[in-house]
Amino acid sequence: MTQKITIIGVGLIGGSFSLALQEAGVDAEFIGCGRNEATLRRARERGIVSRYSTSVKEAVADTDLVFLATPVGAMEAVLAELADAVPAHAIITDAGSCKQSVIQAARRQLTLMDRFVPAHPIAGTEHSGVEAGFAALYRNRRVILTPEPDTDQSACDTVQELWLKTGALVEVMSAGRHDKVFAATSHLPHLLAFSLVETLYRMEQKEELLRYAAGGFSDFTRIASSDPVMWRDICLHNSDAVLESITSLREGMDSLVEAIVAEDGKRIEAFFKIAKETRDNKVLNKASQDSPIEQAPVPARLPENPQ
Amino acid sequence: MTQKITIIGVGLIGGSFSLALQEAGVDAEFIGCGRNEATLRRARERGIVSRYSTSVKEAVADTDLVFLATPVGAMEAVLAELADAVPAHAIITDAGSCKQSVIQAARRQLTLMDRFVPAHPIAGTEHSGVEAGFAALYRNRRVILTPEPDTDQSACDTVQELWLKTGALVEVMSAGRHDKVFAATSHLPHLLAFSLVETLYRMEQKEELLRYAAGGFSDFTRIASSDPVMWRDICLHNSDAVLESITSLREGMDSLVEAIVAEDGKRIEAFFKIAKETRDNKVLNKASQDSPIEQAPVPARLPENPQ
Repeated sequence: MTQKITIIGVGLIGGSFSLALQEAGVDAEFIGCGRNEATLRRARERGIVSRYSTSVKEAVADTDLVFLATPVGAMEAVLAELADAVPAHAIITDAGSCKQSVIQAARRQLTLMDRFVPAHPIAGTEHSGVEAGFAALYRNRRVILTPEPDTDQSACDTVQELWLKTGALVEVMSAGRHDKVFAATSHLPHLLAFSLVETLYRMEQKEELLRYAAGGFSDFTRIASSDPVMWRDICLHNSDAVLESITSLREGMDSLVEAIVAEDGKRIEAFFKIAKETRDNKVLNKASQDSPIEQAPVPARLPENPQ
Repeated sequence: MTQKITIIGVGLIGGSFSLALQEAGVDAEFIGCGRNEATLRRARERGIVSRYSTSVKEAVADTDLVFLATPVGAMEAVLAELADAVPAHAIITDAGSCKQSVIQAARRQLTLMDRFVPAHPIAGTEHSGVEAGFAALYRNRRVILTPEPDTDQSACDTVQELWLKTGALVEVMSAGRHDKVFAATSHLPHLLAFSLVETLYRMEQKEELLRYAAGGFSDFTRIASSDPVMWRDICLHNSDAVLESITSLREGMDSLVEAIVAEDGKRIEAFFKIAKETRDNKVLNKASQDSPIEQAPVPARLPENPQ
């Protein structure tokens, strides 16, 4: 049976989702939706969608599944528009980088939450926009589902199956835990990369400074080329966990500064050693990145909510 | 004429210097020096040096050039040992990441400063040690010479020529300016990478956290795998400029935190936008990394000292 899948937001995340499913041979009609008609036209040219509308109501009217891939800050308005227009059987899922705020928005806007499956694909590049999407984006990447106690099992299964077809690895976590984990491992590094470049920007003779900012600096700040609007929304929508992570980082830096001021070589070295060992043990083995992980079936609800 | 070149510290920096010069066909005898005999033996096996000694006095007794490639913190003790043992005609140069503190140490230990050429190759990997050296390390990388007013022109020329033979691009800067520039563009990013990983290390359920710390995180923290001793020494020997950079970063982060707490989306977005634009304009064009730069002749002294 040909499914209808509506992609709201046809940029890197939405576009890649459609391209990956098509490459996997999923028999579906892809409908695009967004505010910018030129972008939607380009998405049709690229084969991301076969038709489109700038009206949410129109784009979801006969759909089976809505894939929300807008910046997190735009999601509540979209949910408000589609709430009455989407068929009762249709599943709604999202790709937002914060989960608690999106779930809260869905609770405010949707009459029934059972067909809403919150999800977050851990994939991306520093590029964004309709030209950036590609079919392989999700291959071997993790997708985190954060179902709520009232999320329908079959809706969850459908969303999981689609993600598996993109080549992704699906995991389940509570929304609260998700937001803390990604504040520390993703949001914090992004804010640091932005902050580092912003620091250089404020310095005197910055043109000369930046001439020397090559090599390691370039790797280090790659993520500072990410979309400012997306990251603004993450800061606003996961602010508690983000601020907590920043506070924790500051405590570490304060202790490093203290050691530098005290010329305490032993303490400075111990600080760096812990970091190096943690990084070498945990990242270089790349367990989290490359090796396939067990595909556990998605429970209808989490056994417990270990927030 | 066969020169004798003594490499003190046969790790990544010293080893690569020798291998690069040999690959370039430089007719010289390379003599190794270090504290660890097993390392020196391995350096001889790898062809980095043809003979070695654990005694500085012995290793520099008949040398024409000393290349100091120890961590910055070990340099003063080595300079003290070689001061009376090195032939009067021999040039001494170093590869320390901080220049003012090394120059101060040289002034304390050497009777004459005219044959001392302070230098800093802007190259490295996150690996260190005798196995890490390779001939191509310096190719198209910048090497900064920071000659003092009393540095001899011909000594400077000789050091520059050797660096050019490794494939490096040579530039001249005052030591004070050098220390500020690299505090911001190199030392600060390294301290941030170490701090970020140290933050994760302190968090609850860090094993789970680190499982998700892949992708961008891995790039971002690559430099946190660098040698803790080297970075301890940089913190201790360039502390003023390092602390100034950290202060400046904190000011930026404070303003970002303020904006997040105030839910000021415009201000957050503006902060990220400045960073993204700075990064895209200045790093992605890679001017500083890839394009050959003009090889200006090294002046005997800097026209002025724009510290």
